[in-house]
Amino acid sequence: MCGIFAYLNHLTPKTRKEVLDFLVNGLKRLEYRGYDSAGVAVDSADGNNMAIIKKSGKVQALEDEINSLASSLAFDTIMDCHVGIAHTRWATHGVPNAQNAHPQRSDTENTFCLVHNGIITNYKDIKLFLAKKGYTFESDTDTEIIAKLMLHIYKSHPQNTFQEIVEQCIQQLEGAFAVCFKSKLFPGECVASRRGSPLLVAIKTKTRLATDHIPILYGKESRTDPAEAKAKTDFRPHGGPATNETLTAASLMPRTPSTAEFQPMEEDKQVEYFFASDASAVIEHTNRVIFLEDDDVAAVKDGTLTIHRIRRNLDDPHAREITTIKMEIQQIMKGNYNSFMQKEIFEQPESVVNTMRGRMNFEGQSIILGGIKDYIPEIKRCRRLMLIACGTSYHSAVATRQLLEELTELPVMVELASDFLDRNTPVFRDDVCFFISQSGETADTLMALRYCKNRGALIVGVTNTVGSSICRESHCGVHINAGPEIGVASTKAYTSQFISLVMFGLVMSEDRISLQQRRKDIIQGLRQLEEQIREVLKLDSKVQELAKDLYKHKSLLIMGRGYNFATCLEGALKVKELTYMHSEGIMAGELKHGPLALVDETMPVIMIVTRDPVYNKCMNALQQVTAREGRPILICEKGDKETQEFASSILEVPHSVDCLQGILTVIPLQLLSYHIAVLRGCNVDCPRNLAKSVTVE
Amino acid sequence: MCGIFAYLNHLTPKTRKEVLDFLVNGLKRLEYRGYDSAGVAVDSADGNNMAIIKKSGKVQALEDEINSLASSLAFDTIMDCHVGIAHTRWATHGVPNAQNAHPQRSDTENTFCLVHNGIITNYKDIKLFLAKKGYTFESDTDTEIIAKLMLHIYKSHPQNTFQEIVEQCIQQLEGAFAVCFKSKLFPGECVASRRGSPLLVAIKTKTRLATDHIPILYGKESRTDPAEAKAKTDFRPHGGPATNETLTAASLMPRTPSTAEFQPMEEDKQVEYFFASDASAVIEHTNRVIFLEDDDVAAVKDGTLTIHRIRRNLDDPHAREITTIKMEIQQIMKGNYNSFMQKEIFEQPESVVNTMRGRMNFEGQSIILGGIKDYIPEIKRCRRLMLIACGTSYHSAVATRQLLEELTELPVMVELASDFLDRNTPVFRDDVCFFISQSGETADTLMALRYCKNRGALIVGVTNTVGSSICRESHCGVHINAGPEIGVASTKAYTSQFISLVMFGLVMSEDRISLQQRRKDIIQGLRQLEEQIREVLKLDSKVQELAKDLYKHKSLLIMGRGYNFATCLEGALKVKELTYMHSEGIMAGELKHGPLALVDETMPVIMIVTRDPVYNKCMNALQQVTAREGRPILICEKGDKETQEFASSILEVPHSVDCLQGILTVIPLQLLSYHIAVLRGCNVDCPRNLAKSVTVE
Repeated sequence: MCGIFAYLNHLTPKTRKEVLDFLVNGLKRLEYRGYDSAGVAVDSADGNNMAIIKKSGKVQALEDEINSLASSLAFDTIMDCHVGIAHTRWATHGVPNAQNAHPQRSDTENTFCLVHNGIITNYKDIKLFLAKKGYTFESDTDTEIIAKLMLHIYKSHPQNTFQEIVEQCIQQLEGAFAVCFKSKLFPGECVASRRGSPLLVAIKTKTRLATDHIPILYGKESRTDPAEAKAKTDFRPHGGPATNETLTAASLMPRTPSTAEFQPMEEDKQVEYFFASDASAVIEHTNRVIFLEDDDVAAVKDGTLTIHRIRRNLDDPHAREITTIKMEIQQIMKGNYNSFMQKEIFEQPESVVNTMRGRMNFEGQSIILGGIKDYIPEIKRCRRLMLIACGTSYHSAVATRQLLEELTELPVMVELASDFLDRNTPVFRDDVCFFISQSGETADTLMALRYCKNRGALIVGVTNTVGSSICRESHCGVHINAGPEIGVASTKAYTSQFISLVMFGLVMSEDRISLQQRRKDIIQGLRQLEEQIREVLKLDSKVQELAKDLYKHKSLLIMGRGYNFATCLEGALKVKELTYMHSEGIMAGELKHGPLALVDETMPVIMIVTRDPVYNKCMNALQQVTAREGRPILICEKGDKETQEFASSILEVPHSVDCLQGILTVIPLQLLSYHIAVLRGCNVDCPRNLAKSVTVE
Repeated sequence: MCGIFAYLNHLTPKTRKEVLDFLVNGLKRLEYRGYDSAGVAVDSADGNNMAIIKKSGKVQALEDEINSLASSLAFDTIMDCHVGIAHTRWATHGVPNAQNAHPQRSDTENTFCLVHNGIITNYKDIKLFLAKKGYTFESDTDTEIIAKLMLHIYKSHPQNTFQEIVEQCIQQLEGAFAVCFKSKLFPGECVASRRGSPLLVAIKTKTRLATDHIPILYGKESRTDPAEAKAKTDFRPHGGPATNETLTAASLMPRTPSTAEFQPMEEDKQVEYFFASDASAVIEHTNRVIFLEDDDVAAVKDGTLTIHRIRRNLDDPHAREITTIKMEIQQIMKGNYNSFMQKEIFEQPESVVNTMRGRMNFEGQSIILGGIKDYIPEIKRCRRLMLIACGTSYHSAVATRQLLEELTELPVMVELASDFLDRNTPVFRDDVCFFISQSGETADTLMALRYCKNRGALIVGVTNTVGSSICRESHCGVHINAGPEIGVASTKAYTSQFISLVMFGLVMSEDRISLQQRRKDIIQGLRQLEEQIREVLKLDSKVQELAKDLYKHKSLLIMGRGYNFATCLEGALKVKELTYMHSEGIMAGELKHGPLALVDETMPVIMIVTRDPVYNKCMNALQQVTAREGRPILICEKGDKETQEFASSILEVPHSVDCLQGILTVIPLQLLSYHIAVLRGCNVDCPRNLAKSVTVE
């Protein structure tokens, strides 16, 4: 939630229009993270101040506003070096309007301005402190106090560098943040930092770099002799020889011929930096990125990147690695689809195969999960498995819990990360904790991970984002390989998380003779999934017809039990997120304990009844609903005429093994939520009030 | 669900009107178990056939119908001996109409007729079998096949006794049932049986009985010499000396002077029997009852009660005990209240004290739970605690989970009984499983209990009903002592279950030095509850005003987290059950992962924000809601002005210790659901589609 984007060009001339286009396009890629308001800050046309343009609503509104200001913004002027920062907002504090949009500024002079993703939990205390010092506030945001605090620190220590002011500032902040600063006092410089919220720096140069590591400057070291330390460790694309040849002191040089060492070419000094909340915003420019860690301060001055940390702990690394992102630009484009969500639903035949690729050997009936195979003996000795997640990822845990209980014969607990933290749940050294998150940055899940890690549990990450915080902080993990998911409502990540957990169960049961037939059935089921999902997707037009009957209703109940209960929860969440209808997933076994009171001939009900071990119980529930004049839409197995008799409409899915059926039954509900949303005129990729990658608690 | 009532008078002359009044009044007491339709079967006025009167709707409709038939029913005729059976229905198979009402009959001759509570899961197979034999069916119920099967068995073995036919019949049935039969062929006889669903026999005699035990006649024994066995074991109120003086053979004699042994007085032969689903239906007549066990067949012939079982297992007892029920008739009367539910809400200051009475020593800071104290060492050694329940009882487990985790330092899992069974959850010998149920008869909970017991776990029952199945089948337990709860929507049972589980936590932590201050705070909090609940109940008129704003809405969201999350779930369930508004309890921590999309200025939102460890997180959620134009009603602590600023309306409750706050925050929601239901014209004691004591899966 909230997208940060900044662009710094050093000795790479760009027109002002080009710079603004870069910023706006970056925001568009990040729009799934929030779309309540958007804003940019660039140098003013005369170069003496800043132009801050902010607009309530989506990025498009900001773009229109910028275009309307074409003349005053001097689109055609060329700038050799420039810093622009930009933001798309998911409102937490203060209603979504231009006043509360970012960038926020320190004063009307724009001495400092910043963009921020996260929540500053002690903002009230700081605001009170600053108000006493005479500062006045123009917004309701927590962010504005950061800008004011920067100015206050600068006034107290006017000799400090930009990076030092930021360092002092963030030490006062509690909560979660990723921030990017621009200052009138420090033209051409950009400073960024993070704690809790994700932030990366991407680097674009014409020539390759000499090393993939950016040394970290720790506070003590840099303070003994800042000048020397700086010389030793700066990221210097201008290619001079390092003054010191040790690893920590190795400078980063573009790979130029040795003759160039003494004759640096102009080309080697050219560099562009991008700061962004995630890689999809930069991939069209470069695939070389550094994922910042909590409390890193990254500063660019004179085209040189340095990474600073205040203190060094044991085990802290010497450097941050520059990683090469494997992501294709078309993966983050909509192609022929109307929305990312629709594209991602229809990608599922491929994405489930990608999740299994290189792991499942269908001939040999064997599975290898490279990311955790060394830990399997330890996991087998554990006291219990805990699956911890939020939202859709939580549902993937609910969906596979029963199978994991069966295949591992361990107690399996599933927990909402927020509730898990609220409860200070007891965790033990012999627990194995799974953390499931598409983005790998979900704040609650990440905090639960750290909580469990501190208590000595083994941490297993299940994410879709290489280099994400959960990836980095886990002992081991499974990458679900679903490809970038951009629609705010998660679809293909759900089915891939589901399959990843099933594969884990299969690995755990490899050695159990009594489970061999069961494993064979499941492996066979996994093999058929691609074809079966294609078949389910053919329901699209039928689902669209059903959506026409449903879209005007206020409520929707989705009922099921056993393996299909998670589908009910997930389907209801999709409908809620996208259509703003009040939908609820109901455990069919609990109907008689309350929810049945809601059922009458007007209440739309969807029931999932497949031929699994709870079929008879589901039929009881179905009869209770029809006895109350309910007219359920049934999601059931192809050709199951007996069940279909009770339905007002049916959606038939192919038969799979019980524990995989939920992958096939959830897809019609994904389609249904999509079509209802379209009929209700909702923006499927940008549902109101929501954002992808929830990086605040 | 479904209430059974039967009345048999032997040598106690009653007018036909009196008999019908008994039956109808019995049904009224059981009406909370179902009110879709009602019916009675009595002898016809000429004594040669049966009169079956059935009516769709509530018992009142049946009573009106009976009164309209006054002349044909010959109200004033006196009968010395008679059997009448009656039923109030909660529809499972077949819509609620007169055709599907009970009693169901074997043929138009009414050879056999019966009332039934439960679901016969193999009814389709039996129906098919009978249809092939030429039987035709007049209803859509599963029950009708029992009547037809009785006739079929009778035709095959015309020499069999009534009780033998029932015994053979029930051996064919799968599923859950309590049944009561009347037959034209066996006038003055009544046979009843149960499996899964509750059933008791109550006995009314003028003189006291000689023993409190009714011997059980096991199949083998009775078959070697039926006549002798019968003579040995019959329940004979006519007071002759027993032919055999051993315990199993002891006949049951009214306690008459020894001279009477040889001169039985007419008075001693007078006896009345009541068969009922629970004790509240009989308490106005007698407090002497026998709770039947699964597969008991109870038969009355010539005024004599016998209990039969087909086979005897090891450990099976010799006799069933006649227990004396401690229940006052005014406890099951509404008094000055408009409904049982309202009465029960307002009883909570007393019911919470009753739950603690004799257990909490506030001066000595000690707690004794007599029902489990011998098992505490075993519980302390366990691997984990599991709390298993349905509906409101499940919410009491959610409410206390965190505290139990804190005080026991054990992993605590809470499980919906139906899902727990669906998942075939692994259970181990070192698990301790709690089963929570107001009635002690909830079918899913009871089945989960048996599942865990079979796997060697220690079983702890937490019920409000002495003599209930869960009570009897637990190793140990806590009786919550809330007094009879008759409103279908559970209120006082919830708060008493909550306190019972808190007391259990206190017992478990008695020996822990580091928890002494925490325990003191909680004990102090418990002590203040009575007074604080009285204060909360004073909100009644304010809640009524709020209900006027809310009752026309379609949806309602109730949000909170931490200790108050259970209150959200429970409050939402109450609203759902009683008002048919689509309400949902939402974990505030999950808002950003979907539910926030529902929030706008039109969606009614209630938020619970108290000064506990998650206060700041709740305030974040609150700000997210207000940032989306939501106008929440806040349930918060008295005098908490800072929080109240964000509210459109407030309901203030006194401050308690964090883990008990949920008892105080749930009461305004109980009141709210009550008032909304009244404003919407709903019957609070008989919400549509629901029934108390869910004895079917």
